[in-house]
Amino acid sequence: MHKASSREVPANGRSRVVIEAVRPEIDCGRFPIKRVTGEAVTVEADLLVDGHDLISAILLFRPAGQTEWFETGLREVGNDRWRGSFNVDRIGRYEYSVEAWVDHFKTWRRDLQKRLDAAQVTAADLQIGSRLVLGAQARAKGEERRRLEQWADSLATVPEPLEGARLGLADELSELMSRYPDRSCSTRYGKQLQVVVDCGRARFSTWFELFPRSTSRLAGRQGTLRDVVTELPRLARMGFDVLYLPPIHPIGKTNRKGKDNALVPAPEDVGSPWAIGSEAGGHKAIEPALGTLDDFRSLVKKARKQGIDIALDIAFQCSPDHPYTKEHPEWFHHRPDGNIQYAENPPKKYEDIFPFDFESEDWFALWEELRDVVIFWIDQGVRVFRVDNPHTKPFRFWEWLIDEVKTRQPETIFLAEAFTRPKIMYRLAKLGFTQSYTYFPWRNTAWELRQYHSRLTRHEVREFFRPNSWPNTPDILTEYLQTGGRPAFMARLVLAATLTASYGIYGPPFEVCENRPRQPGSEEYLDSEKYQIRNWEAEEHNERISDFIALVNRIRRENRALQSDWNLLFYDSDNPQLICYSKRTEDFSNVILVVVNLDPHHPQSGWIEVPAKELGIESDDPYQVHDLVSDARYLFQGPRNFVSLDPAKVPAHVFLVRKRLRSERDFEYYL
Amino acid sequence: MHKASSREVPANGRSRVVIEAVRPEIDCGRFPIKRVTGEAVTVEADLLVDGHDLISAILLFRPAGQTEWFETGLREVGNDRWRGSFNVDRIGRYEYSVEAWVDHFKTWRRDLQKRLDAAQVTAADLQIGSRLVLGAQARAKGEERRRLEQWADSLATVPEPLEGARLGLADELSELMSRYPDRSCSTRYGKQLQVVVDCGRARFSTWFELFPRSTSRLAGRQGTLRDVVTELPRLARMGFDVLYLPPIHPIGKTNRKGKDNALVPAPEDVGSPWAIGSEAGGHKAIEPALGTLDDFRSLVKKARKQGIDIALDIAFQCSPDHPYTKEHPEWFHHRPDGNIQYAENPPKKYEDIFPFDFESEDWFALWEELRDVVIFWIDQGVRVFRVDNPHTKPFRFWEWLIDEVKTRQPETIFLAEAFTRPKIMYRLAKLGFTQSYTYFPWRNTAWELRQYHSRLTRHEVREFFRPNSWPNTPDILTEYLQTGGRPAFMARLVLAATLTASYGIYGPPFEVCENRPRQPGSEEYLDSEKYQIRNWEAEEHNERISDFIALVNRIRRENRALQSDWNLLFYDSDNPQLICYSKRTEDFSNVILVVVNLDPHHPQSGWIEVPAKELGIESDDPYQVHDLVSDARYLFQGPRNFVSLDPAKVPAHVFLVRKRLRSERDFEYYL
Repeated sequence: MHKASSREVPANGRSRVVIEAVRPEIDCGRFPIKRVTGEAVTVEADLLVDGHDLISAILLFRPAGQTEWFETGLREVGNDRWRGSFNVDRIGRYEYSVEAWVDHFKTWRRDLQKRLDAAQVTAADLQIGSRLVLGAQARAKGEERRRLEQWADSLATVPEPLEGARLGLADELSELMSRYPDRSCSTRYGKQLQVVVDCGRARFSTWFELFPRSTSRLAGRQGTLRDVVTELPRLARMGFDVLYLPPIHPIGKTNRKGKDNALVPAPEDVGSPWAIGSEAGGHKAIEPALGTLDDFRSLVKKARKQGIDIALDIAFQCSPDHPYTKEHPEWFHHRPDGNIQYAENPPKKYEDIFPFDFESEDWFALWEELRDVVIFWIDQGVRVFRVDNPHTKPFRFWEWLIDEVKTRQPETIFLAEAFTRPKIMYRLAKLGFTQSYTYFPWRNTAWELRQYHSRLTRHEVREFFRPNSWPNTPDILTEYLQTGGRPAFMARLVLAATLTASYGIYGPPFEVCENRPRQPGSEEYLDSEKYQIRNWEAEEHNERISDFIALVNRIRRENRALQSDWNLLFYDSDNPQLICYSKRTEDFSNVILVVVNLDPHHPQSGWIEVPAKELGIESDDPYQVHDLVSDARYLFQGPRNFVSLDPAKVPAHVFLVRKRLRSERDFEYYL
Repeated sequence: MHKASSREVPANGRSRVVIEAVRPEIDCGRFPIKRVTGEAVTVEADLLVDGHDLISAILLFRPAGQTEWFETGLREVGNDRWRGSFNVDRIGRYEYSVEAWVDHFKTWRRDLQKRLDAAQVTAADLQIGSRLVLGAQARAKGEERRRLEQWADSLATVPEPLEGARLGLADELSELMSRYPDRSCSTRYGKQLQVVVDCGRARFSTWFELFPRSTSRLAGRQGTLRDVVTELPRLARMGFDVLYLPPIHPIGKTNRKGKDNALVPAPEDVGSPWAIGSEAGGHKAIEPALGTLDDFRSLVKKARKQGIDIALDIAFQCSPDHPYTKEHPEWFHHRPDGNIQYAENPPKKYEDIFPFDFESEDWFALWEELRDVVIFWIDQGVRVFRVDNPHTKPFRFWEWLIDEVKTRQPETIFLAEAFTRPKIMYRLAKLGFTQSYTYFPWRNTAWELRQYHSRLTRHEVREFFRPNSWPNTPDILTEYLQTGGRPAFMARLVLAATLTASYGIYGPPFEVCENRPRQPGSEEYLDSEKYQIRNWEAEEHNERISDFIALVNRIRRENRALQSDWNLLFYDSDNPQLICYSKRTEDFSNVILVVVNLDPHHPQSGWIEVPAKELGIESDDPYQVHDLVSDARYLFQGPRNFVSLDPAKVPAHVFLVRKRLRSERDFEYYL
């Protein structure tokens, strides 16, 4: 006979519970999930054990760096699935894991009930229970230890089995035993999963983008950071809490682009802010025409006082005049003639831009320098960054940089501007970007919006990808906005502001419904601020929707339901031009129902199908919907209700759902 | 300014490609996938890189223990997904992983084409290409090294850019360069994923279960292992290749069960074979009434000569008379009175069975002993085991045991008899069981069968869970069989034999359509062999479907399409009593279409909807279906065809699809 050779003893051979399919868990735990302070993390796991024994299980969690775990119970929800949750209240990282064990007391108690039902309880059964209680007694302390000893004694000595069963099944004993379980053979899930906890603004934020050089109220003059300061009260009143500035660094002269991206600039042309670096400095300097570092620090402080964060643009690329090109030529690609390689996407050339060579032998010095750029602005008080084209720099680099920065300043918010393929956008979000631009600008029909936003809010993606919806940017004037006039701007504003908790507008042209493209078929603005100074306040404009924007932002601020992404539910309409969805707080104390007419040219009406229960309305009671835009109130009843929206007036309803209607019963003498 | 502290340099900072979502990968690589020799492993991964550069990637694979990897290409299939595959030809374990890198030559070549299209090729562009070719030249050897040097030289010196572009785009250069890629900054997937490769029988097997003690052809006599030998030729002719015997070990006397599970046995009662152990020995011994170890070895050898594997039953539990109870009382639970605890599921007691205590302090000695039981039978030539109730012993124990056994004898097949909740069944399959019993006995309607078998064959589950369908077992006489008579047995046989590549019957009662339950509502057989001897050949029976069974098994043997599980496709029928599905080889050289009438009482007819393309038929050509059961042939055309099945005759069609119809064009003189 083949005699088996002796082997190493496997660890934990007596740990019989296995833990599977723990969720949330991103890419096998490679990446953290995201939350903001005050939110809950709900964790599920499959817990399996051989045989008929019962399991007890806990969810473990702690702020990262803390050695002790907090514990909270997991309860079974069916099909061997267990669930529990904990709240995160500190900015930074948390860890969570799961532990489970065979609970012999719970098993004994269940069996005791069955024996009692079958009139089979014996003294031996009670003695077995007594032994288990004694085990817990040894783990307990003080008064509870004494009480457990009494219970063990009673079970072992009770003369009458029926009376013993009553003792064994007592809730008090059960409660006491649950506090001193035997975890000697417990199973711990092998991974400590991570949560990145951000400040509340990471989830709910309202962005306004402007070019500081276009903020002068005098036609033809260059605006400065001081002019931006004068804009602050107006922006605060309009309800914005993040003011994002395109790069404010010195702009290169070599190969500078002229107006409307002309290859040959006029002498007075100011260049693109994204062509960073001149003899005045690079990524840590400020364009002299905009002001000084002191001006900038002052702007950051004054903005914060009005509840506004200044967001800087991180664009890791250089103009040919950037100091790095001389100090660190090894950080760039070189052409065979020895010159630095400009950016290109053949056959297009971008000769005013040098990309970094992240495959440089000196790559880590480059990484450190770029991190120090961010740290430099953190030290000036900046907490929010919009990152330009992160998908053109290595993923590993960003993961490292964001971790380095958030280790120093965990409140930092990074918005990824990566308009690229979905898996790349998701990867950037997973590796650490706090928020992400989305495909929202190109989702125009009800079906497209519903598909896309359902994907973002109902799928695992929501654990790490926080959408930030922008109806326009300096690069994106959509065809819908070009052709839809004022109603299109209003509709897209309401959609951006209510579909996602964070949204932003490239503000000055949006306020005046600027819709002229550089040429037909292009999404570029005519007379784009990217290449020239505008004076929005000095120019003539036929339209201005600033008050409407302020109203929508006020509705967002006053209705908590609009401050989360996960609570979005779509509803059917018999008119495909009408999109309908709700958002609500978990306790239904705030319920918002939105209907938008997507056709900017014609009034549209139709029936919407909203299960009243999803709005917190029981049965067929009538309920009131209060349009926070028009202040009109309507009575709805049942699942089908009629709406009609004229885009020439306002293309959207933002209803606050009011459950309780006054009736004669509210009169004091009714009863 | 906050100066960032210096940190450790991250590894692989220049490896820009990231690898995600590698499939198949079971539970983050915790468990292997399964294949049999000759099968392919198709691997997919998401490969992402920053910017516009192109990626090259390979699939790595090797038999476990080998240090060198084999390599094969991965190609992009859209949406950043890449795919490749390799074949496994050795029994044992394989490993696989993925490697990917930025391919600068491929990128350069793509850009060169764009430059050529825009008439922008310059000498500098060709010099950059020449540099890349020189890099490959340094990695190449011999003749290819010389050829690469020539290419580099030509590119660097060609006087005419257009001619240079032609050189740079040459297929020969591209092919040569692809053999010497620059993998210095490549990314290797962090995990080495595992494949367990089994022998072919692990996938395709035909099981027959019988009780050796019931094989005597003389009424009232106990059958022996020698009687089993005389059954072999008949079983081989019927097409069975695994003969599974319930436990053949000595049967305990204490608390022995009588006929039909009676608590008090008659003196002549033989007891349940699952009450293992008496003074004659335990799990390594043979019940003296059945014969000797020599008889058993002889049976194994003679069976193998006829293409039949003997499968033993692994039932890790003891009768009160088992030698372990005295030699190793520490391996059992004890009651307060010091006696060993019998099995129970309150209020039911199984006093003839002692379960092991896997939480024993001496657990590892127990594990080793149980492993040695299996090794003992391996040493007698056994290669197939049916494991009784594996879900009542710890998961970790089985994973260890199966690994230990397969390390010694990789051909070993373990069939898990775990009729329990789905996640537990899947866990057992993941941790190593080769095949698994399924819920097939209780899936009776077309909808149920379609849902269940689609789940098993289209989901990730198929990577580790190999179904083995049993229409009956000694514990399971389904209501469908009890009430449906001969047609029910025939229908369930065809379903089991064609839905899954492995199936089995508890044979003697199945052959004679035995359908009498112990009592109404029970799935137990009346006069069950579990507690008494039967003499099937000596008894009178009205029905016998042995020839039909033999025919179905011959169809399985002769049609490769029926020897796999993954190729199952279901079709709609307008009559819910008709279930319709196909199986085919990948190259369509063998295509089987099955239609079963699930109603055992009435003829049923209707239209089935089979997209001809899924049978390998182009367009609307008529095609022939040849019923391998009745030998009748029919012409089908288009997606809808009519079928009619009378259960009183045969309740199923098993069509061989013949694409090519003879026509006048086949006549020699037609052309």
